[in-house]
Amino acid sequence: MAQLQKGKLLYEGKAKKVWEVAGDPDHVIQEFKNDATAFNGEKRGSWEAKGTVNNTVASFLFRYLEKQGIKTHFVDQLSPNEMLIKKLAIVPLEVIMRNRAAGSFVKRYGAPEGLVFSEPTFEFSYKRDDLGDPLINESHAIALGVATQEDIDEIRATAIQVNQLLKAFFEERGITLVDFKLEFGKHKGTMLLGDEISPDTCRFWDAATGKKLDKDRFRFDLGGVEDAYAEMLRRITGEVLA
Amino acid sequence: MAQLQKGKLLYEGKAKKVWEVAGDPDHVIQEFKNDATAFNGEKRGSWEAKGTVNNTVASFLFRYLEKQGIKTHFVDQLSPNEMLIKKLAIVPLEVIMRNRAAGSFVKRYGAPEGLVFSEPTFEFSYKRDDLGDPLINESHAIALGVATQEDIDEIRATAIQVNQLLKAFFEERGITLVDFKLEFGKHKGTMLLGDEISPDTCRFWDAATGKKLDKDRFRFDLGGVEDAYAEMLRRITGEVLA
Repeated sequence: MAQLQKGKLLYEGKAKKVWEVAGDPDHVIQEFKNDATAFNGEKRGSWEAKGTVNNTVASFLFRYLEKQGIKTHFVDQLSPNEMLIKKLAIVPLEVIMRNRAAGSFVKRYGAPEGLVFSEPTFEFSYKRDDLGDPLINESHAIALGVATQEDIDEIRATAIQVNQLLKAFFEERGITLVDFKLEFGKHKGTMLLGDEISPDTCRFWDAATGKKLDKDRFRFDLGGVEDAYAEMLRRITGEVLA
Repeated sequence: MAQLQKGKLLYEGKAKKVWEVAGDPDHVIQEFKNDATAFNGEKRGSWEAKGTVNNTVASFLFRYLEKQGIKTHFVDQLSPNEMLIKKLAIVPLEVIMRNRAAGSFVKRYGAPEGLVFSEPTFEFSYKRDDLGDPLINESHAIALGVATQEDIDEIRATAIQVNQLLKAFFEERGITLVDFKLEFGKHKGTMLLGDEISPDTCRFWDAATGKKLDKDRFRFDLGGVEDAYAEMLRRITGEVLA
């Protein structure tokens, strides 16, 4: 990896930048920023080491999932806040898996927060900032030409498998995996798990106390967001922030 | 039917009342009101013969679907605005079938109105006025205990079949069936198509001119709502309002 050179900036989002790899059209570098946004960009913030925690946690979890047979875009963690990944043609759907009711599910359906589902739920959001990433079902996604039935079947099967693996992984670490978001894309015709898996994209509750150890601390001004992220880094990887 | 006696009022909704049949626990009478509401009750109105048109159209369409093998709650049209039906335990899901983009689909996903889908879309709303009848997917409905997988599979198969039958029925009458809402419920353990099928619950566009011949004329103050309902009565049943 020594010869890797950052090329031009391809994309800058709310929490990440994506850079070209000079002379390599098949890979890109995703850089994790310390910035945080919530409620479709209405709330903004930033804290030290956020990028490092998310990159290190996501790199660890992608390695773990790869070992369990899940195909991901992960290649290597290049630095505290940079990850080398395979370049994807992103499917413009966010996949949300839920084991318990929280967040938009509670708001939308009036269910009590923490309600345990006998079977995990699987849902899509249409990745459209201008529309507020609305809930969309499979027949809608197909009608809009956003994905094919085959893509959707593959994404659903992988997401369900990832949930089973991560739920067990976090249970062993005293964490309840409440829900999480995944993104997928194609690399040379193969569907891969993309984006990140981190306290930004998952709801983590301490199994013993119920304490929230994720981005909800930022969203709802619960305090201690830096400590929660550091705690999740420690529980997942064993690493302690300097 | 001569001995039928209305018992007590069981339910009054935005556009219908439901009455007990004295001495008959298996049947109820649904009475079609002339009242109309839209946008979850924010807009209200009323016009002459609305109840008669909806009841007569729905009775005609239920008879037609029954002949084609669809099981419905319809028993008989008792009067211009009353229908005798089998009593249902309603599944609290509205089913929306769409052949073209319109209404909430356009608003939610930014699709152009009238976009023709290669396959019809199938969606559920959770029947909860207090939550604004939100879009819900199958895994959510199961997680909330609203319906079983078997119920959902049966409802989906019937709704797709009803769409095929009605689309062809309306095409022969110079009408494009854009989208429509169905409701289902169980009567003695059997899933039946319930509620109504009318200009209140369907989007009908004149196939030649694109003119809207349904409740959208009321929703969006397009004028001529009474004439549009009378026109749909005539095209469907051949009847002309006095």
